[in-house]
This record gives sequence, C-alpha cells and structure tokens, in this order.
Amino acid sequence: MALIVQKYGGTSVGSTDRIKNVARKVAKFHEQGHQVVVVVSAMSGETNRLIALAKELTPNPDPRELDVVVSTGEQVTIGLLAMALQAAGIPAKSYTGGQVKILTDDAYTKARILDIDDAAMRQNLSEGKIVIVAGFQGVDADGNITTLGRGGSDTTGVALAAALKADECQIYTDVDGVYTTDPRIVPEARKLDTITFEEMLEMASLGSKVLQIRSVEFAGKYKVKLRVLSSFEEESQGTLITVEENRNMEQPVISGIAFNRDEAKITILGVPDQPGIAYQILGPVADANIDIDMIIQNSGRDGLADFSFTVGRGDLDKTINVLDRVKAVINAKSIESDKSLCKVSIVGVGMRSHPGVAAKMFRTLSEEGINIRMISTSEIKISVVIEEKYLELAVRVLHKAFNLDSAA
Amino acid sequence: MALIVQKYGGTSVGSTDRIKNVARKVAKFHEQGHQVVVVVSAMSGETNRLIALAKELTPNPDPRELDVVVSTGEQVTIGLLAMALQAAGIPAKSYTGGQVKILTDDAYTKARILDIDDAAMRQNLSEGKIVIVAGFQGVDADGNITTLGRGGSDTTGVALAAALKADECQIYTDVDGVYTTDPRIVPEARKLDTITFEEMLEMASLGSKVLQIRSVEFAGKYKVKLRVLSSFEEESQGTLITVEENRNMEQPVISGIAFNRDEAKITILGVPDQPGIAYQILGPVADANIDIDMIIQNSGRDGLADFSFTVGRGDLDKTINVLDRVKAVINAKSIESDKSLCKVSIVGVGMRSHPGVAAKMFRTLSEEGINIRMISTSEIKISVVIEEKYLELAVRVLHKAFNLDSAA
Repeated sequence: MALIVQKYGGTSVGSTDRIKNVARKVAKFHEQGHQVVVVVSAMSGETNRLIALAKELTPNPDPRELDVVVSTGEQVTIGLLAMALQAAGIPAKSYTGGQVKILTDDAYTKARILDIDDAAMRQNLSEGKIVIVAGFQGVDADGNITTLGRGGSDTTGVALAAALKADECQIYTDVDGVYTTDPRIVPEARKLDTITFEEMLEMASLGSKVLQIRSVEFAGKYKVKLRVLSSFEEESQGTLITVEENRNMEQPVISGIAFNRDEAKITILGVPDQPGIAYQILGPVADANIDIDMIIQNSGRDGLADFSFTVGRGDLDKTINVLDRVKAVINAKSIESDKSLCKVSIVGVGMRSHPGVAAKMFRTLSEEGINIRMISTSEIKISVVIEEKYLELAVRVLHKAFNLDSAA
Repeated sequence: MALIVQKYGGTSVGSTDRIKNVARKVAKFHEQGHQVVVVVSAMSGETNRLIALAKELTPNPDPRELDVVVSTGEQVTIGLLAMALQAAGIPAKSYTGGQVKILTDDAYTKARILDIDDAAMRQNLSEGKIVIVAGFQGVDADGNITTLGRGGSDTTGVALAAALKADECQIYTDVDGVYTTDPRIVPEARKLDTITFEEMLEMASLGSKVLQIRSVEFAGKYKVKLRVLSSFEEESQGTLITVEENRNMEQPVISGIAFNRDEAKITILGVPDQPGIAYQILGPVADANIDIDMIIQNSGRDGLADFSFTVGRGDLDKTINVLDRVKAVINAKSIESDKSLCKVSIVGVGMRSHPGVAAKMFRTLSEEGINIRMISTSEIKISVVIEEKYLELAVRVLHKAFNLDSAA
C-alpha cells in the first residue's frame, strides 16, 4: 500500500464528464489499497473567466481581492470531485488551501508555501477517505486567502507529497509524459521513461511546458518522486522525474531538445569596459520587471565592449525605452535590437562526462547553413540563439544528430 | 455618523457594471461619514449554474460538498466589489463567512447562525474601511464551509446588523419596497412606507417574496431596523420594517393583500373522529418532507370527520401516494384532491382592534360570486382558498374594499 498524491490540471477536470473520469481513475488506486490525496486545478477556462471579470472592473485589481476571486475556481472543482467520488460510493472529503491548512507568505498572486499541516489529511486517509485539496491556493498567517501564481497547482501537489512523505507524486496532464522534443516539430520525438530533475528544469524553463518549474525545484529539493502522466491514456507509465543516480547507465548523452520562439536580442554597442557596467545596464531593466534571459558581454578594442542580452519579445519595446535613458548615463554608442530570433537548447546530464557535445551541435547547425547569433552554456545545457526561420530545421537535425530519433 | 449594514442581492450585482453601480452607492454613504458593512449575494444566475454542475455529477450531491461549491458564488462577488471600491479610491476589504467569522451549526445547505465575531469588522470600520462580507455562508465549529440556504444573504445582513448593533440594515433589491399587493395584478397597488415585522412575516410567507422570512424573524427578534430599498432607484426611501409602536396612528386596518397560486387541497373523507387521527394522517406526510400549509378538520355525523389540508401543487401526487397507504390504516372512506386552487390573504395588525374585517372580506368576495373553499385565520391575517381563476378578481376587489388603492 502506497501513499500517492495525484494532481489533475484544468483540462483533466474541464467538464463534469471529465471530473467523472478523474473520479474513476482515483477510485482505481483506492480499490488497489493505496491512500490517495488528489490536488485539482480550476476547470479549464475558469481562472481566465474570473480574471476577466476583475479586469472589467479595473485594469489593476487589488492583489488580495484578486486572490479571493480566482481561488474560487479550484474550490468549485474540489467540491465537484468529492461529490463524484461519493456518488460512486467512495468516501471523500474536500479541503480548500485554508482548510488544510497550507500556510503561505502574504505575497498575493505569487505566494510561497511556508508550512503544511498534515494532521487532517492523515486522519482522513487513515479512515480510508480520499482527500481532495484545492491546488494553487493557501492562507497567510492572518487567514487571508493567497494564490501561488499560475501553474501553482503543480507546486501544491509536490508540496503535499513532501509534507506527507508520499511514495509518489503523479501529475496528470493532457500529454502522456516528457518528450525528447515537441512532436509537432519532430514526428520522431519519443517519450522519455525517465528524466533527471536538473534536465527537467532546463527543459521546462526552455519552453517544454509540461510542469511548472517551481514544482520541479520543490520536488528536487525534497526528493519527491515525481511522475508526469496523461489523464486520458490509461496504459502509459508517463515519465518519471528522478535523481541522477537512479537512472539507467545506458542513458544517452542528450535527453532532449528544447526551444523558445519568443526571443528578442538587444545589443548595446561601445560600452565602457569597466566594473559595474553590467549592473548599470541590467539594474534598470530588472527594476522595470522585465525578465532577462541570456546575457553576453565581450571585451573589445579601445576599452569598449559590446553587451548583449535577450528578453521576451513582448518586452522588447519597453526594454528599449529603459535603455534609451541608460545609454546617455553610461555613454554607450548605440543600441541595436533583433526580434526575429529563437533559442534552441540541447539538454542532458550525459554531456558532463562526454566532451565534444558542443562541437557536434555547432557542426550540425553549420552543415545546414544556420548561423549562430549567441551561445550560452550550463553544466547540462547548451543554448544557441538563431534566426527564427531556422527553428524547425535546427530542432530536427539536432534531434537526429544526437540519436534521439530511435528508442534509447 | 451611523453604522449601516447594506445587503445587495444577486440582480444588484449581476454584472460588473452593476457592481460598479453598487460601489458608487456604497461610496456615497462612506463620503457622508457613515460606517458601512456590505453583504452581497452571488451574481444572478451563478448559484444556479453551480448547482447545475453538481447535479450533472449526481442527482443528490453530498451537502457538505455542495456548500463548498455554491459558497464560491458570493466569494467572487465580495472580491469584485472590494476591487471596484479600491479602484475608486475607497479602502475596502472583503471577508468570506469563514473569515469573519460567522459560526453556524453543521446543517449543510440550511445552517443556522450561532455566533458572529465582530472584532475584525470593527477594526476595519474604525480604520475607515468599507467591510464587505459574503452573504449566505459561514463555517461550523470544525471549519467546514456551510450555507444558510436560499435567500440566506438577507439573514447574513440582519445577523451582522444585530451583532454590530447597526443603526439600520438596508436590503437592496430590484423592487423599491413592500407593496400593498402585486402591482402586476392591481396597478393601483402602492408602496408602503412602513410595515410591522409581523405583517411582513405574513406577507412574505404568503408569497410576497421581497425578503427572506428568516431574516425578518431575526430582525424582529433582535430589534434590527430593517429597510427594503431598490438598488436601481436613487430617491426612494423604500419600506421600513418596524415594531408596531413606532407606527403612525392613522394606520389603515389592512396593510396588504398577499396571494399564492401554488395551492392544492386534499380532503380525506370519513375519517374516524378520534384523538391522534391528525397525527396519523400528517405524520407520514411530514416524514416525506412535504410542507403542509392550511389544515382544517370538521367533526361530522356518525363519529366520522372530514380532514382537509393544502400542500404545494408540485407535492400533490407525492402526497396522495403517501395517503393511499395511510387510508387503509385509519379506515378512511376516500381521498379527494383539487389542484386548481389559490390562496388570498389580507394582512394587517389593525384587524386586532377592528371587528368585522372577516365579514367584510367574505361579503366582498360573495358579491363577485367567488366561492370560498377554505378559511384560515391568525391574529393579523385572514386567508381564503378559492378557485385559481378568481385570483386576480379577488385581489383587485379586496384591494379596493379595504381602501388600499388610495394613499394612506
């Protein structure tokens, strides 16, 4: 008998028929003798509907009140799922984040979990009940309702699994696992049976939107066994996200290829090459709440350097406005930008012990005549920025070059 | 400076534009220096939408879980109204029933309020904030979400006014007060400036659905000054519901005429005229959860009696099924029923000190050839059951006969 935390996303509970389907899946685990805690999201579309109502009233709704409103989405789902299970003769009880309780800080709309009281859940589990918990939400120390931000239901699932020392945390979604790359671009892409937390983090942050990145960090930190599964396919075992040591020795060098279309590059030319210049440029950008991705600085001639970085394409105009003010202060020569770019990354813990991976990546791209505009590397990832028109081609040739097309 | 509790129903908050309108009304009281606590219902249609979702899953949803689901309706409204006020520069803070907290028993879907903690509300009011509270809901001693049943938001408003010793509880609705009768039937019907709690109870229970009856009982018990107003008309002072002593001495004998189309009469003929027979008949009916309205028993000849009572028309078939079983046990002769009936009642505290009111009522009806099928009286009300086809005629002639057509 295992203790399993299952999380079902908005698509999986998007209608009452789908909620019945979830109830059947949960019931199966219950019948096998497992203890099950279920975390659910709002029915798909509901969170957006609620936010739209708020925006009709004011473009900048008060964050505390926005959390009061949007947290109702998950509250509806927990009640409905509990009813569906009870109607099927299976004892079940729903809990809001506040009822559990899931204590968070008071950073409304993006709160962090501080503590989880597992007493009520354990009591119910020991009585043979299914425990259903609203994802995405908690309460602060004063009893105000908070939400964890978009995708926060994954984090709730992992945090509950950690608090309960669950045997496994299963994230049910509309894909049946993590793929070597997007199958819409490479039909030969295949599902990975396992992936390490670190790889998953790199894959997720690079645009493979299977799991919310915070939940993966959380799972890695608390050693929660995390599995991504489809709520619609019965047979698949999904992808297990695991620590490196548990993996098959025959693991390929590269686990997957991630990409992001939404890249814009900004270069500030002729920047004085002196200490503190990076902060002078990026400080105001960060202050304007713009997320910066890759950063490259090259020393040049005459004590001048070129400084480049990428931002999300939607932030480009805002970033240039900020830099126009910075430019005068730091005496830069000019600002250039390019928004028709994308980023392609190869990810794999195997590259640590295999030299020549970068060279192979660059050679593969060069053979197709694809010019590399920026390069950035980490321990287990190599990213290149290229022209967006080459994205599909680059992903396909890299997928083949690193032997991802065939089963491992 | 007064402390005012205002309650806005589902129609008054039925869209974001209407919520903005409520915010403007609340703001006006705030600007005049009053302390305001606002109770809101779910946006119109929302509660029904949520119940429909539950019924899609199971015809008999678990009551605890149903309350978890439907209580979200009011939670959305409190957040939206708080945003709207804050966007207009007015400090406001929302509270769910659980956050206030409004302690109830654990009778899910029809809970009763046991206690209200006024500390947080008073604190916010003293800081100049508008306090917004979700109507219709509370929590039991174990922190489970409960609801007060349909129309429970009125009860929340009155209960908060009682707990805070508010100067007035204003119930905003889509009518501008209590009328002498339904203006759709009698165009000459006029709005009452005042009505006593007792009259209001008789009017409400007889089908003038302006206020939830429980809230009127509550207001009477705790001497809460209750006013019914329109949320859409600015100038009207509505109707004040008050204790008898505060009324104008020149009060007319009859305050209003209520009616109910939904009546079915059942007569059990030839019942042995012996003690316990009423219970033997009505006990099984009550056990089947059927509400009984008027009851009449006449002793007859040969130690046999006829026993009549009325039920809601939708319950008639169910009632007859129950009675078919009872009939054999008590040795009754036969069961007759009639569903094309209605009830018309004249209500007024003045009838206590004015004899002849009943006679005048019966004469008025007889002059129009309307046959009276049943009569029932209380201290301040006389009800008759007549054929439904005479309903409009009866209400019109009684309205005129008791001088309700002209201003008091």
